[in-house]
Amino acid sequence: MHAADLLQASIDRTRSIACVGLDPRPALLPPGLISEALKVHGDTAQGVAAAFLAFNLGLLEAIAGHCAAVKPQLACYEAYGSAGLKALELTVVRARELGIPVIADGKRNDIGSTAEHYAQAFLTQAPGLAGSAIPGLGADWLTINGYLGSDGVTPFLGKAPTGTGVYVLVKTSNPSSGDLQDQPQGEGTVAEAMARLVHRWGAGRVGTCGLTDVGAVVGATWPAQARALRALMPDTPFLVPGYGAQGGSAADAKAGARADGRGILVNSSRGIIGAWQATKTADWQAAARAALDTMNQDLA
Amino acid sequence: MHAADLLQASIDRTRSIACVGLDPRPALLPPGLISEALKVHGDTAQGVAAAFLAFNLGLLEAIAGHCAAVKPQLACYEAYGSAGLKALELTVVRARELGIPVIADGKRNDIGSTAEHYAQAFLTQAPGLAGSAIPGLGADWLTINGYLGSDGVTPFLGKAPTGTGVYVLVKTSNPSSGDLQDQPQGEGTVAEAMARLVHRWGAGRVGTCGLTDVGAVVGATWPAQARALRALMPDTPFLVPGYGAQGGSAADAKAGARADGRGILVNSSRGIIGAWQATKTADWQAAARAALDTMNQDLA
Repeated sequence: MHAADLLQASIDRTRSIACVGLDPRPALLPPGLISEALKVHGDTAQGVAAAFLAFNLGLLEAIAGHCAAVKPQLACYEAYGSAGLKALELTVVRARELGIPVIADGKRNDIGSTAEHYAQAFLTQAPGLAGSAIPGLGADWLTINGYLGSDGVTPFLGKAPTGTGVYVLVKTSNPSSGDLQDQPQGEGTVAEAMARLVHRWGAGRVGTCGLTDVGAVVGATWPAQARALRALMPDTPFLVPGYGAQGGSAADAKAGARADGRGILVNSSRGIIGAWQATKTADWQAAARAALDTMNQDLA
Repeated sequence: MHAADLLQASIDRTRSIACVGLDPRPALLPPGLISEALKVHGDTAQGVAAAFLAFNLGLLEAIAGHCAAVKPQLACYEAYGSAGLKALELTVVRARELGIPVIADGKRNDIGSTAEHYAQAFLTQAPGLAGSAIPGLGADWLTINGYLGSDGVTPFLGKAPTGTGVYVLVKTSNPSSGDLQDQPQGEGTVAEAMARLVHRWGAGRVGTCGLTDVGAVVGATWPAQARALRALMPDTPFLVPGYGAQGGSAADAKAGARADGRGILVNSSRGIIGAWQATKTADWQAAARAALDTMNQDLA
């Protein structure tokens, strides 16, 4: 299935355009999971990884059916090396069992022959030593950085039998995103030059839902720019970070939607997975689900 | 020690400005290592990882003392998941034992709070569950992508007690690097705008060798641009990919050197680690060492 159609089907089924960021950190973990992991593994990378996995499995149970997708932030796992990556792998297995599309947030980028290895790692499969195909992480989408141009992007396109997609960084949510992205370029900005490339990379790749599998990351913190960027990328799905904790409102997050309402997926991480802390409740799964329900209503 | 001084000391000690790219792929592995790994692990990710590790350990033995640094390409390891990452971790341990500076080639990038996790992963240490500090990969340098601007870069600067550095992508070696990087921006190009940011990020960070710990990736395939970029970044160390297999000559690779000859580190991967195939010799360690000697002479 085309990656954009897979995601649209999930949006339709769950009636949600929310994406839950699975970005575990020790400071966000419920005390019960910490003490359990310490008992078994001590204060090691394995212990952190075990607690991350237990947290993620509980979160997935709580949110399945009520969000369009999940987005693990790879940096959170990589901070704990191969142990952390193992927790990520098992998290993705469970998300797939639950039918939740997975966006691997790795912002990968490299020259063509190396981008091919990243595609193998996250979206497809890698060659073994004697002819086997060794499955990768099995994500549906991967965030990438387009600074290297076309030959760093094409190895990611349309790889897996089921269809995979990419979200290319265009206008990021962070305060200093303008350092390069807002610099004037031609008639517009560097971000707009990137948007034109994204539109070009998506040409001829539109699914039945009307969107391509070459998406764009456009932060909720810049709604005026999101509207301008939509005009340059009419059939591009937007992944929208920056809602909630980073300051973007629901209206800001939806600024880049198409006239038909499609084309945006809004991410929240801390607002969902850290809701048990904000609401001071011990039942962290119920707190995550309640926060997701509130987010869905806010975005409706 | 300041990261640029550590690297300059290695250059002085080895009389080499060569960096060996540790970018293993099944197709580059000697038959003996493949059959050994298949015997123990079968055709699995663990098998590939075991063969990668054996290959790297043999290569490190052969090249130690004759190159300034090694640069593992993270994508090659990530293609085999947590098993691949484990092989990378053990490779870096051995490189450090041998006193070879390590450049983790991951081209990482994200917003500030996430960039912090990447810094933990590759350059410093991450928090445990109960106050421990969990060591990261332990690389000396990390390649990063500056598209997100300052707050995606500062979390990487000056982190470890021994000093770590970053190389920011400015002008990459691949054919389509111009798609964005050569677009006109102000008086110059997007790559030149990035160069100005790199120069700014390095301000006040010069080591005793006269170079900063905020470097730039400038491909050997664009020598005229390398000269122009040097003028914008007078005290920035350049990491130069694209020599050899990608088409850059020794003169091209050295085009961005400073007048005092400093400030460049030239990478070769396939030309060294795949030399046993090109020369049809069974002794892959001797072939790698001979290819490195030839590269050192070529660059002298």
